[in-house]
Amino acid sequence: MTKKVAILGASGYTGAELVRLIHAHPDMRIVALSADRKAGQAMGEAFAHLGHLELPLLQKIEEVDFSAVDLAFLALPHGIAHDLVRRLPDHVKVVDLSADFRLRDPAAYRKWYGREHGAMDLQPQAAFGLPEIYRERIARARITANTGCYVATALLPLVPLLRAGLIDPDGIVIDAKSGVSGAGRALREASLFCEANEALSAYGVAAHRHMGELDQELSQAAGRPVCASFTPHLVPMSRGMMATIYLRGDAAAAQAELARQYAAEPFLRVLGLGKIPATSHVRGSNRCHIGVVADRTEGRMIVVSVLDNLMKGASGQALQNANIMLGLDETAGLTQVPLFP
Amino acid sequence: MTKKVAILGASGYTGAELVRLIHAHPDMRIVALSADRKAGQAMGEAFAHLGHLELPLLQKIEEVDFSAVDLAFLALPHGIAHDLVRRLPDHVKVVDLSADFRLRDPAAYRKWYGREHGAMDLQPQAAFGLPEIYRERIARARITANTGCYVATALLPLVPLLRAGLIDPDGIVIDAKSGVSGAGRALREASLFCEANEALSAYGVAAHRHMGELDQELSQAAGRPVCASFTPHLVPMSRGMMATIYLRGDAAAAQAELARQYAAEPFLRVLGLGKIPATSHVRGSNRCHIGVVADRTEGRMIVVSVLDNLMKGASGQALQNANIMLGLDETAGLTQVPLFP
Amino acid sequence: MTKKVAILGASGYTGAELVRLIHAHPDMRIVALSADRKAGQAMGEAFAHLGHLELPLLQKIEEVDFSAVDLAFLALPHGIAHDLVRRLPDHVKVVDLSADFRLRDPAAYRKWYGREHGAMDLQPQAAFGLPEIYRERIARARITANTGCYVATALLPLVPLLRAGLIDPDGIVIDAKSGVSGAGRALREASLFCEANEALSAYGVAAHRHMGELDQELSQAAGRPVCASFTPHLVPMSRGMMATIYLRGDAAAAQAELARQYAAEPFLRVLGLGKIPATSHVRGSNRCHIGVVADRTEGRMIVVSVLDNLMKGASGQALQNANIMLGLDETAGLTQVPLFP
Amino acid sequence: MTKKVAILGASGYTGAELVRLIHAHPDMRIVALSADRKAGQAMGEAFAHLGHLELPLLQKIEEVDFSAVDLAFLALPHGIAHDLVRRLPDHVKVVDLSADFRLRDPAAYRKWYGREHGAMDLQPQAAFGLPEIYRERIARARITANTGCYVATALLPLVPLLRAGLIDPDGIVIDAKSGVSGAGRALREASLFCEANEALSAYGVAAHRHMGELDQELSQAAGRPVCASFTPHLVPMSRGMMATIYLRGDAAAAQAELARQYAAEPFLRVLGLGKIPATSHVRGSNRCHIGVVADRTEGRMIVVSVLDNLMKGASGQALQNANIMLGLDETAGLTQVPLFP
Repeated sequence: MTKKVAILGASGYTGAELVRLIHAHPDMRIVALSADRKAGQAMGEAFAHLGHLELPLLQKIEEVDFSAVDLAFLALPHGIAHDLVRRLPDHVKVVDLSADFRLRDPAAYRKWYGREHGAMDLQPQAAFGLPEIYRERIARARITANTGCYVATALLPLVPLLRAGLIDPDGIVIDAKSGVSGAGRALREASLFCEANEALSAYGVAAHRHMGELDQELSQAAGRPVCASFTPHLVPMSRGMMATIYLRGDAAAAQAELARQYAAEPFLRVLGLGKIPATSHVRGSNRCHIGVVADRTEGRMIVVSVLDNLMKGASGQALQNANIMLGLDETAGLTQVPLFP
Repeated sequence: MTKKVAILGASGYTGAELVRLIHAHPDMRIVALSADRKAGQAMGEAFAHLGHLELPLLQKIEEVDFSAVDLAFLALPHGIAHDLVRRLPDHVKVVDLSADFRLRDPAAYRKWYGREHGAMDLQPQAAFGLPEIYRERIARARITANTGCYVATALLPLVPLLRAGLIDPDGIVIDAKSGVSGAGRALREASLFCEANEALSAYGVAAHRHMGELDQELSQAAGRPVCASFTPHLVPMSRGMMATIYLRGDAAAAQAELARQYAAEPFLRVLGLGKIPATSHVRGSNRCHIGVVADRTEGRMIVVSVLDNLMKGASGQALQNANIMLGLDETAGLTQVPLFP
Repeated sequence: MTKKVAILGASGYTGAELVRLIHAHPDMRIVALSADRKAGQAMGEAFAHLGHLELPLLQKIEEVDFSAVDLAFLALPHGIAHDLVRRLPDHVKVVDLSADFRLRDPAAYRKWYGREHGAMDLQPQAAFGLPEIYRERIARARITANTGCYVATALLPLVPLLRAGLIDPDGIVIDAKSGVSGAGRALREASLFCEANEALSAYGVAAHRHMGELDQELSQAAGRPVCASFTPHLVPMSRGMMATIYLRGDAAAAQAELARQYAAEPFLRVLGLGKIPATSHVRGSNRCHIGVVADRTEGRMIVVSVLDNLMKGASGQALQNANIMLGLDETAGLTQVPLFP
Repeated sequence: MTKKVAILGASGYTGAELVRLIHAHPDMRIVALSADRKAGQAMGEAFAHLGHLELPLLQKIEEVDFSAVDLAFLALPHGIAHDLVRRLPDHVKVVDLSADFRLRDPAAYRKWYGREHGAMDLQPQAAFGLPEIYRERIARARITANTGCYVATALLPLVPLLRAGLIDPDGIVIDAKSGVSGAGRALREASLFCEANEALSAYGVAAHRHMGELDQELSQAAGRPVCASFTPHLVPMSRGMMATIYLRGDAAAAQAELARQYAAEPFLRVLGLGKIPATSHVRGSNRCHIGVVADRTEGRMIVVSVLDNLMKGASGQALQNANIMLGLDETAGLTQVPLFP
């Protein structure tokens, strides 16, 4: 039976991407779209590339009728979901693309987001939303906290290696690079074409908020505190994300473990030892490709992980989580072949 | 019943795009892929973004077994199809993405391509492949000559207007702009990133080969010789094509005629009078959007037509033609929502 | 003797470009920089690429001491210069990069800018700032109204041809394309990287404000009213502007006239008949290159004109005008070789 | 007195960049340009952006009259300089932009370049060409081996820190990113616009040839063998290079040492502790900017170094070396303010 979903925050890039995906989903239908400041407009006014689709008008959140909604995607800024989820009817499942339900420790939430977690009572209902790692928990959860794009890119290779004890949890270096869509559609000087084009910049060095989730999940996987070096960079392209990860451990063993672990995963591909993926290999798809290379120094290796930040890093992952939560085929609506060039 | 197709010339961008599309087609299956210089390789070696798909190995054309092939896509350089089609078994239908079967007049072929047409005997079996204009002829054809991307972008608005006598056939100006993928994957200096990036250039001014088909089709539609001004430009983007067309005629009448003509077309959208489309509205899709604006001078108008040169301008159009020729749903495999950003 | 200049509106791209140029000028020194909302900041905070230069702090305009200023560059939004120029001391010459003093006819100003011209008494002191056309008037002017980038690109080829009677003033089509920096540093959705990247759009079709100056100058050159078709496009590159112009007239005669007219101009280059320039040939320089090609239809031709919109289209042209007004070598500070790639 | 120079290999990007720079040099004149396959052409045919300059015609190297040449820039592929330098008259000084004279150890040369060093007798005359580190040696050298762009970006921050013993020589991670012009103008599929645009890729992981010079110089600075992890990436922009370097040591001490060391350097800028440079801050200039940030983990830091790969990473550095070798002002011809946007 077709599941009915609402997308709250449909006027941002991740909201539009959800529309693109769900419009082609065989068992899901969009029954409500919200965008407070654009309420009353057609989706095609906010995003001309969706103008030919039949879609509900944009509404204010409080105007949405949730009575027939099976699941709501929250593509809203950080800090809104705590209150909002509390106000939703109990039968509505939630995939939250913000960071609001990612951190299980209220102290960590306070540290990284500068204020109190507003819904600690709901937090135990929330699964951390990386299906390849937490699939069963997601299947039972009412709320899934979608993983941030940077963290997803890093965790997919790192969690299995830490769990298997194949890498040294100390001294991990994650050099991360993102396309500009990761910054969203908000009007910021750094997001202007002329600022980002023909430019490469690092930002939030040693201070990016997503380190909170990174620490939580790496430590969980290692069974002890892990504090990696992490530097995000802004790359002049719209989509795409790469993590180049420097590790101590045996490259061949790591590659074999990842290949084994992910052999049956529909969206993951572990390349042969020494092969390296590029972001263009996965653009527009829900895929994550991982390459492992032995470094020149004995006992060191380099892992490269790529995904499309709006897909596997955000909306694609969200739909995958929703499919799991709703008991649908996990790959439904997500089988796009990458778009190249 | 699933139709079996071969893609000859699979190592170029249009070949790869056909693979992307047909892989998701419910009633079509790729049984052969050719690429002479890469024969023996997997498709994933030529195009890493297709590396996770199950596909036949690349072969030389002469190694392909056509006995079970229903239709062959020819994504080959100009000048090869004349001989090749003659050598194919009669039961194999052909969609030719080259210019070889586009010109019905051997003198025109000689003029624009500098040599004799090598298969004038087969030419009568060939339909000109713009489905919105020649759908019925395509349905009966053994060979369909896919329209070139520039010409498709211009003909879709111009043919109905000329047929309806709503525009002056003299003094038509077509200022055309293409993304770099229009030049293909061949190694040319002008196609290098550093040459095309941060650069805009006009080329082939008053001399581009595609003028042959343009003249033929505009004249056919007008019922008298038409010779438009046409300037192609290279724009620093991978995909996308726009024709900005300057015409004499009444904008409101033109918009109304186009809207009427294309109301039921699944891939065409005629915007409201005064609205203008952008290439990003159709990227990755098989769509063509058309806008009509009245110029400041009474009796003059400006028409803007956009499409994705690899899709509606090449491989998407080719698949649409193939669907028609094979009696399949014309939109099968072609319902992708545009990818933005 | 070194001339002292102020740049008012230094926090935009044209202001920053003036700083870049004047810093290397042998006979000019920046004594004041204004940027109201960033007053008190160093220029390097607004533009990191200028952070290593010794420059005055940003001030509010009313804080600037104009007593020793020989010339002020006004790189401000449209609508401010009328009042501002009135408040400047008489000894301060002005190069205004806005449109405020470009239109000599108050009715035209009202039509295109939707309000009254606020300084018609000063308008007679203002020269139209295209040095190759109005050099002598600029030399005597107190105010020079810098030509807009689109209009400069079109006028440089068109004015000599109209004056010489070599082209038909009716039916001129100007298809214009601009890099994104033409939209300035203001925060607008259309200027975001993800909106402009991999996208080509037309805008302001038949309605762009710069048509006022275009009409004025083309009509002046032709000695009768001229109303061209003009469509601006936004191209995914930071810098660069091209006008592709469709005309009736003899290409060879036109090329010869332009070559003769501009033979001694330091910044203009008229290519041989049939040769076409690209924007990358002039990037970062104060140059304008012009190509003339005969169209296929007898008596029609295509002219392509390119420049860097921030240089010859704005700040380079402004400095050239200032050099003329101050009696300096016209090319001082403007001899940069284009930057490629 | 004006020095006379030849540029051998003028048809590549570094050759063209040398022409751009030297054309504006007050005390240097280009008397010969070579490009074997384009011999007889004007430079403007190879590079249209130089078409308005008065320059010698392109010649074959053997046609060049070196009798009046003071210095030759060798902008040739690797492997040619050994023989060529031997054939040049003794009075001709050489700045070699290839790797041929960078490695002092013939075994290292053999390892990284797969063949014997062809001019070990000349090697002692060759200085390693990073002026900020080897200025005095360069002043006395007949041959200067220009440092490769990746290695220059990394050495400028690392050498002073290793010499001062402020960082741990073990476990250094250099994550390096380059614009596409680093690959030159050669026709390679990976350099095509459609391959590099909207794509980020790592390449030569743990295997890039430039590691030979990196090892040599880091070991020299540390006084013991150093073997860093080094991963180059290709970024979709024409110019620009960044090294993000992960180190053990005290960030504040490192920043202070670099600031002290480079205080008087005309082209280097060490930012305040915690500040990070972007490639767009130095584009088109001969500058290198360095930022130092303390990592979250006590005793770890991140250093970001940026330059323009064609300028400080190649041709700008080469001209700086030539100025030193010829006794000219080291900054002559190199004071361009960065071009932004």
